[in-house]
Amino acid sequence: MPGPATEARFPDRPRRVSILGATGSIGRSTAALLRERPDLYDVQAIVGGDRAAELAALALALGAKRAVIANPDRLAELSGLLAGSDIEVEAGREAVVAAAALPADWIMSAITGAAGLEPTMAALRQGSFVALANKESIVCAGDLMIKAAHAHGSLILPVDSEHNAIFQCLGSRGESDGAADMGVEKLILTASGGPFRQLSLAEMAHVRPSDALAHPVWSMGAKISIDSATMMNKGFEIIEAHHLFGLPPARIEVLVHPQSVIHSMVGFVDGSHLAQLGSPDMRIPIASTLGWPERLTTGAPRLDLAEIGDLTFEPPDPIRFPALRLARSALEAGGTAPALLNAANEVAVEAFLQGAIGFLDIARICERVLDDIESTRLMDLAAVALADQQGRALAKQLIG
Amino acid sequence: MPGPATEARFPDRPRRVSILGATGSIGRSTAALLRERPDLYDVQAIVGGDRAAELAALALALGAKRAVIANPDRLAELSGLLAGSDIEVEAGREAVVAAAALPADWIMSAITGAAGLEPTMAALRQGSFVALANKESIVCAGDLMIKAAHAHGSLILPVDSEHNAIFQCLGSRGESDGAADMGVEKLILTASGGPFRQLSLAEMAHVRPSDALAHPVWSMGAKISIDSATMMNKGFEIIEAHHLFGLPPARIEVLVHPQSVIHSMVGFVDGSHLAQLGSPDMRIPIASTLGWPERLTTGAPRLDLAEIGDLTFEPPDPIRFPALRLARSALEAGGTAPALLNAANEVAVEAFLQGAIGFLDIARICERVLDDIESTRLMDLAAVALADQQGRALAKQLIG
Repeated sequence: MPGPATEARFPDRPRRVSILGATGSIGRSTAALLRERPDLYDVQAIVGGDRAAELAALALALGAKRAVIANPDRLAELSGLLAGSDIEVEAGREAVVAAAALPADWIMSAITGAAGLEPTMAALRQGSFVALANKESIVCAGDLMIKAAHAHGSLILPVDSEHNAIFQCLGSRGESDGAADMGVEKLILTASGGPFRQLSLAEMAHVRPSDALAHPVWSMGAKISIDSATMMNKGFEIIEAHHLFGLPPARIEVLVHPQSVIHSMVGFVDGSHLAQLGSPDMRIPIASTLGWPERLTTGAPRLDLAEIGDLTFEPPDPIRFPALRLARSALEAGGTAPALLNAANEVAVEAFLQGAIGFLDIARICERVLDDIESTRLMDLAAVALADQQGRALAKQLIG
Repeated sequence: MPGPATEARFPDRPRRVSILGATGSIGRSTAALLRERPDLYDVQAIVGGDRAAELAALALALGAKRAVIANPDRLAELSGLLAGSDIEVEAGREAVVAAAALPADWIMSAITGAAGLEPTMAALRQGSFVALANKESIVCAGDLMIKAAHAHGSLILPVDSEHNAIFQCLGSRGESDGAADMGVEKLILTASGGPFRQLSLAEMAHVRPSDALAHPVWSMGAKISIDSATMMNKGFEIIEAHHLFGLPPARIEVLVHPQSVIHSMVGFVDGSHLAQLGSPDMRIPIASTLGWPERLTTGAPRLDLAEIGDLTFEPPDPIRFPALRLARSALEAGGTAPALLNAANEVAVEAFLQGAIGFLDIARICERVLDDIESTRLMDLAAVALADQQGRALAKQLIG
């Protein structure tokens, strides 16, 4: 039974929804769910990067009011494809931010990387439900985002499977200001442990990018696959969890669980743990944000634990996976430190993928950047951008 | 964030609580939790069976207003022990029911067996929170109890670890009328599988009572240990879950999970599963009902999955464990059939414990009783009592 605040925000009319990052994997899954229930949703803006043909097709299929492409060079193509329809067509960075500000009850924020930051902030200023699939934005600018959400009455619905799991475990009370006053003792983020979970440090020193790119459970891009292999991804998720649920880093644990069936857990003060489990299908967390606080039916494969048979757990190894420690350090340093770490990591992962550095160098470069550049207060998005530049510059210098 | 109905029932003043079955295991754990937070609770009635000394000590420790002993022969002893205190002392069956009707915000119903039925019904007529630890009452008279709870606005908070787990997974929305309209696809009751999980039917034919009495996880009495070994306990829990959560039997599954770490799960229509996990300590489910919808801190041991390492799952075997099928049949037959099954099972288990019949005969006798006695409508508690007599009589005849 949702609280009064929720009911007021859950109108009887179809929910007005927008998708920022519509042509990516999360965006397409979101669109597929929307198309199954056209009675429930009224699509406002959809935003893509530069795949004009895909964006046009989605806009038509969803009956969107506006289609916006970030790359202005694709405006003509998009306009041509949507000529004769009622769909407004725009392009460029400012148009993307304006699309995020177009009134909507629910907005999917799934533009990857730094480009997602400004549109996400615009969405948060609407006082709506914001489904957040852009990890960088909350890692680099978590304080600003949470402040904006509170100031404007928006509710962030996390899409990342781990944080979505925690949000579900907190139930409709996830709307509370923080987990601490809900009897939460700790959050337990599960981690697959990545492809190098059982390698020694000496073996890790010689792994190649191709060794890391075959993730056992989720199909992912190259950058995220490397972040999974270093566990930097899990480090970022500690930062994300801190911002989303308001718990201190010491109460956010990581548990290695190679089958990735339990997506994360919450430990309560009475000794209860609640966990969310499911098949590795992103439709599940997306649908949980789209339907929230109700449940939306999906065709995602159902979990069959009797068939899986066995779930295993082990503690993460802080020696072989220093990224977890680095992320905690960045979170404790606060201010721009997480943005510095994110920038250094992006440069280092790219260098590893290109064969310029070894696997273990990724964490070394990140650590040097955190050590050498002092974090400053996170006043605004400009501070995030500056830290991003500084972190990248030093990381490149260290590599070169 | 609890809904308005909950807030109105969760007054600022200390919660008035009563314990029916105070000197049993559940009652004593409840009392221990109450003693840790005297600021939150104001103890009204506590009811015991015939352990006068224990009841008197608890009444004094808890500052109860009334102490009631079911066995009238113990009244003088109880009165003597409480002489000079302000505590009212009463005895006998009617006094027990009156104690259950003494105004309270939260009532623990933990009187075992058929004796718990009438007091539980009296508690449900208060429009309060009723923590239910008496499985027989809901197995035998589930329809009557749910009807009474609805009619009087009471909320049943299940104490059985499996049903408590499901209730927790449903969150504060557990207050809803039924799980079906909350996006629940199915309930999954976990089962340890009991001590004979890996025996063949031929081996089962020769097990002795002592083989069944050493349960690997929970410490339990003899009757419940045998019910765990036959899985009749799990069959009763299917019936209990049906009444508590309003789902048809086909959507209530059983999953064998020998470690008993996951206490049960809920599968939702979006493909999510929520599970409650914890150490095998009854303080956890009791505290969750006592604090509900908030969380009460307990000293129960915390779960450490990295230390446990491994959770396993397998489907239940319907051939070796016919009790599951019998319970489903009784539930589908409805009316007094579950009460007949419960009565036959009690007699058969007793006979097995005394060496009069073999282990496999327990289910055979139950099946014969279900086959031979037609179930009738469950009009009132008298119908339950009649079915109980009939079931017992035929079971005894079959054994003799």
